[in-house]
Amino acid sequence: MKKFLDDPKQFVPQMLEGLALANPDTLVYVPEYNLIQRADSPSVDRVSIVQGSGSGHEPAHVMNVGKGMLSAACPGDVFAAPPVDYVYETVKRLASPRGVLLLVNNYTGDRMAFEMAEELSVADGINVRTLFVDDDVSVQDSLYTVGRRGVAGNFFVMKAVGAAAEAGADLEELVRIGEKVNAVTRSMGVALTACTPPSKGSPLFDLAGDEIELGVGIHGEPGRERAKIAPASELVDTLLDALVTDLPFSSGDRVALMVNGLGGTPISELYLLYGIAHKRLAAQGITVGRNYIGEYCTSLDMAGASLTLVRLDEEIEDLLAAPAEVPIRVF
Amino acid sequence: MKKFLDDPKQFVPQMLEGLALANPDTLVYVPEYNLIQRADSPSVDRVSIVQGSGSGHEPAHVMNVGKGMLSAACPGDVFAAPPVDYVYETVKRLASPRGVLLLVNNYTGDRMAFEMAEELSVADGINVRTLFVDDDVSVQDSLYTVGRRGVAGNFFVMKAVGAAAEAGADLEELVRIGEKVNAVTRSMGVALTACTPPSKGSPLFDLAGDEIELGVGIHGEPGRERAKIAPASELVDTLLDALVTDLPFSSGDRVALMVNGLGGTPISELYLLYGIAHKRLAAQGITVGRNYIGEYCTSLDMAGASLTLVRLDEEIEDLLAAPAEVPIRVF
Repeated sequence: MKKFLDDPKQFVPQMLEGLALANPDTLVYVPEYNLIQRADSPSVDRVSIVQGSGSGHEPAHVMNVGKGMLSAACPGDVFAAPPVDYVYETVKRLASPRGVLLLVNNYTGDRMAFEMAEELSVADGINVRTLFVDDDVSVQDSLYTVGRRGVAGNFFVMKAVGAAAEAGADLEELVRIGEKVNAVTRSMGVALTACTPPSKGSPLFDLAGDEIELGVGIHGEPGRERAKIAPASELVDTLLDALVTDLPFSSGDRVALMVNGLGGTPISELYLLYGIAHKRLAAQGITVGRNYIGEYCTSLDMAGASLTLVRLDEEIEDLLAAPAEVPIRVF
Repeated sequence: MKKFLDDPKQFVPQMLEGLALANPDTLVYVPEYNLIQRADSPSVDRVSIVQGSGSGHEPAHVMNVGKGMLSAACPGDVFAAPPVDYVYETVKRLASPRGVLLLVNNYTGDRMAFEMAEELSVADGINVRTLFVDDDVSVQDSLYTVGRRGVAGNFFVMKAVGAAAEAGADLEELVRIGEKVNAVTRSMGVALTACTPPSKGSPLFDLAGDEIELGVGIHGEPGRERAKIAPASELVDTLLDALVTDLPFSSGDRVALMVNGLGGTPISELYLLYGIAHKRLAAQGITVGRNYIGEYCTSLDMAGASLTLVRLDEEIEDLLAAPAEVPIRVF
């Protein structure tokens, strides 16, 4: 294994320390709970929004903490759900009189941790609601899920409820918005290589030199099919067909299109995929109103990409277009 | 080779087409010359700033075109200097009465193309100046250079002259600023893996499972030493020692610190490196005033990273802090 790390056990803490040192004015890091929170949260004026998950998907979710996005994130170790006490402690610290919204990607371990933390928090009198994201069309059930997995489309739920919370929406309204965005969001990915977790030190699964995993999960879970590598245009067709027919999206729709890198794929290839996908959608009468090209939800160093489509309406588009300030930036 | 591409010959055009489709209001793509330019350039009020280089370093430089950064970029094929006629055509199209500033990383092929294009343009009566960037401390001469190579530190020169041009600075002033920033910028990188150019289809050089290349060039050129993989803290020490002693930077200095991913390294590892480097510099009395963590100048899918230090003064820091609008973004 060749990675930048000192000790696999310190991988997540050292990353979080770096994140906090890079954002001293806006983020607070609480090492005991892997907690990254906005320095200005909780606020009496604003519902707090909390997301947790295993680490290894950066920028999700610790680098999505900031104005107009998450109030806090409490990751677990790499590909491991955060312990219940991390989530519970995070909810207590972020408890606002306006309430706390928990965002959870649909994985059994994450659900358990968040549902137990919600129970404990409600018993403390905190106003909490939990919202599950399940945008991955690849498979119905999976290695770590009952029902569909939550993957990169989670970004759009975070962005929409984050913008609404910033504007003063109440907890019920945020649940409505989050469910609405999740309901019109569809994702599917493809792996060109496996990823290597720091503590394992070797690839999580085997993929031959000419093989790809269509519909891969962000923890390396099997997808729909182990296939042979194909030209980018064919891969885009396969992914878009799965997405478009699922919702379904149809001619006349205006969409957000995300081309998400899984960690080891250069941005040049993501733009190449974007161009192909944009034209394919246009040929079907589907207009890309907003585009998102880069890394949003990764799988460590996996080479691969996922496509996400969101059907836009005026409300969703306004929320996606609202300003936000998170650590990931160019300048 | 497993990459997202249709045909290696179409790799750069398809990427550029995707970039243009994703930014229809702000960028114009001229396929004949691989030219990406600001839709609002040239301007009679503003010196045009043009950078060219081989492709494969994205976001550099085609994704750095926009307000407050480059007016245009004219890349060559992967790791190949742009042809003279691409550069010459770009200069003619971007010719502003205020002049054109050409930015060139110090590689023999790029220098030749830009110097010939400058001669042709001057003969046409265009007011052109050329500025070379050579921030890489790794080696004195290299595979493709006489003198030091230009690598990720180039970003700071682009950003500073871009901000100054936007504010109305004249060509002589931009040359002064660019030379000043280049003179206080130092970079060095390390490769954990080789990269695979699309047209070659196999890794550009061999690196054993436990080997790294210290001081690697962004085209896979050899650096200072083929070494064994070491803990991240040791690698940061090695890179910082080389940078700090070179300028030299010293106690009391305020710096910008960039942790640049080379294409295949996840952002989690880059933040881990940042935390270590930030603390090491603080222990030497060097304050990180601005930080840049992500991909700025890559080498296709190479796993690895480079560190860049810039000694800040008020003028440089103001220029780096000025707003800019380029395609790479989160929202």
